Amino acid sequence: MDRPGFVIEPIEAQPTAQSLASLVDSTRTLARPPISNFRVAAVGLGSSGRIYVGVNLEFPGLPLHHSVHAEQFLVTNLLLNGETSLTSFAVSAAPCGHCRQFLQELRDSENIQILIISDNNDQFTPLSDFLPHRFGPLDLFPEGSPFLLEPRNNGLKFTTRTRMDRDDEDENLRSNNGAVCNGHGTVVDDEKLKIAALEAANASHAPYSGSPSGVALDDEIVGAVLVEKEGAPVRQEETARLLMRSISATCSFQALLCCSDSNYV
Amino acid sequence: MDRPGFVIEPIEAQPTAQSLASLVDSTRTLARPPISNFRVAAVGLGSSGRIYVGVNLEFPGLPLHHSVHAEQFLVTNLLLNGETSLTSFAVSAAPCGHCRQFLQELRDSENIQILIISDNNDQFTPLSDFLPHRFGPLDLFPEGSPFLLEPRNNGLKFTTRTRMDRDDEDENLRSNNGAVCNGHGTVVDDEKLKIAALEAANASHAPYSGSPSGVALDDEIVGAVLVEKEGAPVRQEETARLLMRSISATCSFQALLCCSDSNYV
Ligand SMILES: [Zn+2]
Ligand SMILES: [Zn+2]
Repeated sequence: MDRPGFVIEPIEAQPTAQSLASLVDSTRTLARPPISNFRVAAVGLGSSGRIYVGVNLEFPGLPLHHSVHAEQFLVTNLLLNGETSLTSFAVSAAPCGHCRQFLQELRDSENIQILIISDNNDQFTPLSDFLPHRFGPLDLFPEGSPFLLEPRNNGLKFTTRTRMDRDDEDENLRSNNGAVCNGHGTVVDDEKLKIAALEAANASHAPYSGSPSGVALDDEIVGAVLVEKEGAPVRQEETARLLMRSISATCSFQALLCCSDSNYV
Repeated sequence: MDRPGFVIEPIEAQPTAQSLASLVDSTRTLARPPISNFRVAAVGLGSSGRIYVGVNLEFPGLPLHHSVHAEQFLVTNLLLNGETSLTSFAVSAAPCGHCRQFLQELRDSENIQILIISDNNDQFTPLSDFLPHRFGPLDLFPEGSPFLLEPRNNGLKFTTRTRMDRDDEDENLRSNNGAVCNGHGTVVDDEKLKIAALEAANASHAPYSGSPSGVALDDEIVGAVLVEKEGAPVRQEETARLLMRSISATCSFQALLCCSDSNYV
């Protein structure tokens, strides 16, 4: 394998506190924090039995709110791999308040078990103990909304057919179930990138802004496509352009608008 | 007074839970949340006895991380008015995890007393109960660093003298102790805006990025100046430009670089 792996397949024995904890230290080397130089790693167990890792990422030249914390990387990693539940995780340092809030976007998040390596014990503690008196999805969500990691389809489509040359190819790619946009497919042309970005936008979790969007990158990050909903109150285009410029100065970047044929939940 | 006030001078009796709480509901009308439509207000007591308010602000067209939560507005309000300590505050809904983390940037933050109006009781609870097992400044700060709200001077100056026409005027304005940049002065020309932005950058709290910056706006927001440190790992320019465009499409925006004659702490 050329690149570091961020997912570990189930092993025979059910992972224990020790097995998650034992992976944290070596995972920290994957962190990329050029601004703070503070490396964080989180290693989590999904309900499928697979183990996922997350590390913190910072982007030189951009304000710190563009940073990805290890716990956010971990949850994104679960999402991209179709995992629907996070059971527990071990993390090198106590999660910050922002990450505790972010973890709440998962259903039954109060039961996620957390082990903090720097505490030097084997004690898992539920998220509810880290974020008492919480404010989150249950205060804000419309009734029946899916939580983060739960399947959703925002019903988005491109506003004109001009960008899609052939209906057949389109249908074929759509039935591919997101394989292109999560990095496991081979992206061969610009059309596939656009369709992958639309698929990501359709799975986008944006209940507070009602502004779903998705982005697709090709393997070497020479091209990126962002899809957003026309007329949405929030636009990611300019921010995404800044981020892409920080990651790859020569990457092409294209933002496309789409519309919705159903009410967005 | 033409505009809504965000500070209330000390009254005879020491504010009680009831007096802070009684202001929250009317303050909520000052909130500007066009994306979520969820209004939040926080009313806080500084150690001087003055009462400060904060409301949530959202900016149409920009991602939600540009939003200002009521508690963040409140702390910024204290900072701009030279208040060095937040004793207690009442807030309309439970603070999110992000705000709990932000409040930690204040010294002795664990003792800040918080009353949540939606709980329907008079109970103040310390921040430490809302953010147990915290991760924050004490884990990351260099020894002896000032906390947010504590005086600091980052020792920044413009890299060339060409932008300053007269040393006398310059000295005169510098001795003005920030009066221009916190909105209480009268901004009459571009030079004053630049000096105000430099003063703000000198008071900037950026211990994690080592990238102090400051911004000054004139009264009607037709002009804005951002000052940043040359070569800093983080740059605010592009993000600030996006935000200014969202607030005032016709506002002029200028970003200036400065250098430091001392080591930044
Ligand atoms: Zn975090
Ligand atoms: Zn908040």
